[in-house]
Amino acid sequence: MSRVAAAYTLGELAQRFGLDVIGDAAASISGVCTLSPGEPGRIGFLANPKYRATLAQTRAGAVVVGKRDAAALAGNGLVAADAARAFAQIARLFDRNRDFEPGVHVSAVVDSDAVIGQGVHIGPQAVIEAGAQIGDGSYIGPACIVGAGAQIGAGARLEARVHIHRGVRLGLRCQIQPGAVIGSRGFGNVPGPQGWEEMPQLGSVVIGDDVEIGANTTIDRGAIDDTVIANGVRLDNLIQIAHNCRIGEHTAIAACTGIAGSTTVGARCMIGGAVGINGHITIVDDVIILGRAMVTTSLLEKGVYGSGLPIAPAKDWRKTVARVRRLGKLEDRVRSLEQKTGIKTHDDGDDGNDGKDQL
Amino acid sequence: MSRVAAAYTLGELAQRFGLDVIGDAAASISGVCTLSPGEPGRIGFLANPKYRATLAQTRAGAVVVGKRDAAALAGNGLVAADAARAFAQIARLFDRNRDFEPGVHVSAVVDSDAVIGQGVHIGPQAVIEAGAQIGDGSYIGPACIVGAGAQIGAGARLEARVHIHRGVRLGLRCQIQPGAVIGSRGFGNVPGPQGWEEMPQLGSVVIGDDVEIGANTTIDRGAIDDTVIANGVRLDNLIQIAHNCRIGEHTAIAACTGIAGSTTVGARCMIGGAVGINGHITIVDDVIILGRAMVTTSLLEKGVYGSGLPIAPAKDWRKTVARVRRLGKLEDRVRSLEQKTGIKTHDDGDDGNDGKDQL
Amino acid sequence: MSRVAAAYTLGELAQRFGLDVIGDAAASISGVCTLSPGEPGRIGFLANPKYRATLAQTRAGAVVVGKRDAAALAGNGLVAADAARAFAQIARLFDRNRDFEPGVHVSAVVDSDAVIGQGVHIGPQAVIEAGAQIGDGSYIGPACIVGAGAQIGAGARLEARVHIHRGVRLGLRCQIQPGAVIGSRGFGNVPGPQGWEEMPQLGSVVIGDDVEIGANTTIDRGAIDDTVIANGVRLDNLIQIAHNCRIGEHTAIAACTGIAGSTTVGARCMIGGAVGINGHITIVDDVIILGRAMVTTSLLEKGVYGSGLPIAPAKDWRKTVARVRRLGKLEDRVRSLEQKTGIKTHDDGDDGNDGKDQL
Repeated sequence: MSRVAAAYTLGELAQRFGLDVIGDAAASISGVCTLSPGEPGRIGFLANPKYRATLAQTRAGAVVVGKRDAAALAGNGLVAADAARAFAQIARLFDRNRDFEPGVHVSAVVDSDAVIGQGVHIGPQAVIEAGAQIGDGSYIGPACIVGAGAQIGAGARLEARVHIHRGVRLGLRCQIQPGAVIGSRGFGNVPGPQGWEEMPQLGSVVIGDDVEIGANTTIDRGAIDDTVIANGVRLDNLIQIAHNCRIGEHTAIAACTGIAGSTTVGARCMIGGAVGINGHITIVDDVIILGRAMVTTSLLEKGVYGSGLPIAPAKDWRKTVARVRRLGKLEDRVRSLEQKTGIKTHDDGDDGNDGKDQL
Repeated sequence: MSRVAAAYTLGELAQRFGLDVIGDAAASISGVCTLSPGEPGRIGFLANPKYRATLAQTRAGAVVVGKRDAAALAGNGLVAADAARAFAQIARLFDRNRDFEPGVHVSAVVDSDAVIGQGVHIGPQAVIEAGAQIGDGSYIGPACIVGAGAQIGAGARLEARVHIHRGVRLGLRCQIQPGAVIGSRGFGNVPGPQGWEEMPQLGSVVIGDDVEIGANTTIDRGAIDDTVIANGVRLDNLIQIAHNCRIGEHTAIAACTGIAGSTTVGARCMIGGAVGINGHITIVDDVIILGRAMVTTSLLEKGVYGSGLPIAPAKDWRKTVARVRRLGKLEDRVRSLEQKTGIKTHDDGDDGNDGKDQL
Repeated sequence: MSRVAAAYTLGELAQRFGLDVIGDAAASISGVCTLSPGEPGRIGFLANPKYRATLAQTRAGAVVVGKRDAAALAGNGLVAADAARAFAQIARLFDRNRDFEPGVHVSAVVDSDAVIGQGVHIGPQAVIEAGAQIGDGSYIGPACIVGAGAQIGAGARLEARVHIHRGVRLGLRCQIQPGAVIGSRGFGNVPGPQGWEEMPQLGSVVIGDDVEIGANTTIDRGAIDDTVIANGVRLDNLIQIAHNCRIGEHTAIAACTGIAGSTTVGARCMIGGAVGINGHITIVDDVIILGRAMVTTSLLEKGVYGSGLPIAPAKDWRKTVARVRRLGKLEDRVRSLEQKTGIKTHDDGDDGNDGKDQL
C-alpha cells in the first residue's frame, strides 16, 4: 500500500476529465478539501448555489465549479458540466482506500478447489470455500468468508468480515462493506403441531454488476427462486432485504430500511432511510420514497411518496395523538351539527368499514 | 459436502410423510420448484387458492396440494392435510445448506478446556474459548466465536461469524445466522458527575430449544438476571432484543424490530417488521402486531394491533401532516359552532391533559 | 481469567465508595442480585420508590438505598447519595467480563509495523494492520480488525469482531461491542450517464474518550472531513451514524436509531430507540427525543420531542387511518357549516400549500 499521495496539476486534471481551467494550470493539487475553510494545495467543489459565497473566502487551492458559478470564482479552478461528478472523479484519484497488493495472506484459508483469478488479494483470516470463484483483480479483505461455490465477479471489493453464502453470485466490480451478510436463510417458517417448522430456503442471491452494499446490511437467499439485486444498485448500511425480493437497476436505498419478502422494487427508485416496505408488493420504476415512510401497498405510479408524523415538542405531540384518537367523535359532532342545522354536506361517516381496503 | 442431490420417487415421499399420491408413484423428484413456470423432475406446492389456476399450466414434475385442490391437479402430485408443511418437509430433504463433515479445522482456535461433543464441525478461523461446551452434532461455522463457559446444546447450527458471549446458554437445535451477536453488553448507564458511568451487565442470555436467530440480530445480556428467549422462538434479521427482555415460546418476530429493556413478550405472538417496542412493558400471549407499529404501552389482551400512517403521495402526505397539526384548531371551530348554534353535543375539548396517560 | 468471584465486607464497600453502613459491617458480599427474590450473600439496590415494599421481603444479603429509603430497610445495607450509581460502582467490582491477560494470541495477525502498547491483549484471529497503534492496557478481542494507521487510545475494549477502518482514531477507554463497524464507506454517490458513480469517502471517523458503541452499530467515515463522536457518548446496538455527522459530548442514543449524513447532534442529548433523523440538520444540546420519533427538521431549543401514532387494536387503527385521510373533507364540512350558519371563526383552510415549509 502506497502512503505517498499523488499530486496532479490543474491542467492534468482538466485534460484527464475534459474540464476547463480557470487560473493557473500549473497549480499542484495533492488532495481534496471542503470549501470552508479549504486547504491550500487541495481542491474543493461547489454544487449547491446556496454556498456560492464561500468561493470568495475559501483557502482551497482550486475549486471545481459548474458553468453558472465560473464567473464567481476568484482563484484557481476547473469548470465542469457537472461539478459534483467531476469532483468525484478527481477525488477517486486520491482514494487510498482502494489500494492493495495481490496475494493470499498466509493466515487465509483457501480451499484447494477454489478458483482464484489474477491479481487477487485475499486478506488475513479470510475463508474461501470449495468451488468458490474469485474474479480477477478482486480484493477480499480480512476475515471475509466466501462460501462453497459462490461466484465473485472481477474487480470486486469485499472490505472486511463480509459473509457470502454458498452459491451466491456477484457480478463485476461489486463493493461490499464490512459485516454485510449476503445469502442468510430467508425467514421461512410453517406452523406445525409442535411450533414453527423450517421452510428450507433453497434459492440463492444473485447480484448484478457495480452494486454497492453497506455495512451490516443483510440480504436473504430465496425460498425456491433467487433474491435478485440488479446492476448498479446502491444499498446503504443496516438494510434488510428479505427472501425473493427483486431490486431494480440503479435503485438506491438509504440506511435502516427493511423490505419484506417477495417485494419487487423497480429501476432508478430512491428510497430514503428507515423506510419499512411490506412483502409481496410492487413498486414501479422511478419511485421516490421519503425517509421513515410506511409502505403497506403497491406503488404503481412513479412519483414521490411519504408518510409519518414528524417531530414536535412532546407536549404538542401528546395532544396531537389524543386529538387523532378522538377524530371519530369529532366527525360525530360535525355530523350532528349538520343534521341539527339542516346543513347536510356529506354522508361518509364512520361506518366501521373505513380503510379496510387500504391496509 | 455432497454435491449430488438425492432423488426420491413420489411414492417414497408419500410414504415418508404420510401423503396420498395422485398419478405416477414412480415419478422421480430431484428437487423443488415454484409452480410458475415449474420444472420437470421437481416438486412444487399450492397453498394459496388464489394461484389454483397455475395447476393447469405448471411444468413442475409434481405438486403438493391440499385436499380441496386435489381435483384440480392435472398431473402428478401429493395430497396433504397441510400442503405448505408437507412441502417444507419434502424440501428439507433437498437442503444442502445443512450438510457438513465433523472435525475441527486446523485454523480454528479451540481452548484445551473446551468440551466438544461427538460429530461436531468447527470451521476455519473459529474460536472456542475455555470452558465452552459444544453439544453433539453441532455445526460451528467459519469465524464463529463461542465465549468462555458458553453452552451450545446439541444439534446447533452457528452459520458463520456468530458471536456467543461468555456464559451464554443455548438449548438444543438452535440455528443462528451470520453476524448475530448473543450476549453483548446491555445498554446500562448511570449519570455521574463526569458523564455516563457504566452499570455492569452481569446477567447472561438463556436461549431455549429450537430457536432461530437471524443475521446481524443482537441480543444483549441481562443487567443482573438473564435475558431469556424461550423454546421455538423465531427471530429474523437485524432485530434488537435489549437486556432482561423475555420472549415467550414460539413467538416469531420479523426483521428490523427493536425491543427495549425488561419487556416481556408472551407466547405465540407474531410481531411484524420494523416494530418498536418500549421497555418495561408486557405483551400477553397470542398478540399479533402489524409491521411498523409503535408499541408504547402494555398489550394485555390477545388480538391484532397496529399503528402508523401508511404511504401516500408526498403532496397528500404533507397536507395530511398540516391538517393533523391544526386538529386543535378544527376542534375549536366545531366547539364554537356548537356553542353559537346552541347545539352542544360534547365537552371533551383540548384541556392540555389529553393523552397524558397513554404516552 | 479468574473464575473466583471476589468477596467484600459491607464495611469495605462503604469505605471504598464513601457510603454509610446499616446493620452488620462485617457481612460478606460476593456478588449482586435483584431484590425480588434476592440472594443471601449478594447485594441489590433500590432506586425507584415504587419498589420500596420489596425491602421488607428481599432475601438479598444487603441493599444499597438512598437516604429517603434508609429507614425502610430491615436488614443490612449501604446508604448512598445516589443508590443506582453506588450500586453500579459496587457491581463493577464483580464484573468478570473485563478480565484479561496481556499477550498476543498466536493466531492473531499483527503487522510488524503496528505499535502495540504495554499490557495489551490481542485475541485469536485478530488482525492489526500496518501502522496501527494500540494504546496501553487495551483489550482487542477475538477476530477484531484494526486497519492500517488506525489509533486506539489506552484502556480500550474491542469486544470481538469489531472493525476499525484504516485511519480511524479512538480516544481513551472506548468500549466497542461485537460486530460494530467504524469507518465504513459513507453513502456518497453521484449520478452519471451510466448510473451511480462513487463519491470517494476520504474523511475518517474520530471518536473521543470514554465512548461506548453497541453491537452491530455502524459509523461511516466522512466524505472529506471526519465523522466525529465526542467524549462520553453512548451508542446502543444497531445504530447507523452516516458520514460527517457530529455527535456531542455525553449524548446517549438507544438502539435502532439512524442519523443521516452531516447532521449535528448537541451535547447531553438523549435519543430514544428507533428514531430516524434527517441529514443536514442541527439538534442543539440537552434535547430529549422519545423513541420512534421522525426528526425531519432541526431542533433548535432544548426540550422533549416526540412523534408517531402509538399502538391500537388493528380495527381502531384502520379507522383512525381512514379518518386522518378524510380530514380534508372534515375541514370542508366545518367550513361549510361556518359559512352557511354565518359563524365564521377561521380562514385557514386547505390551500394546497400547507405543510410545505415543515417537510
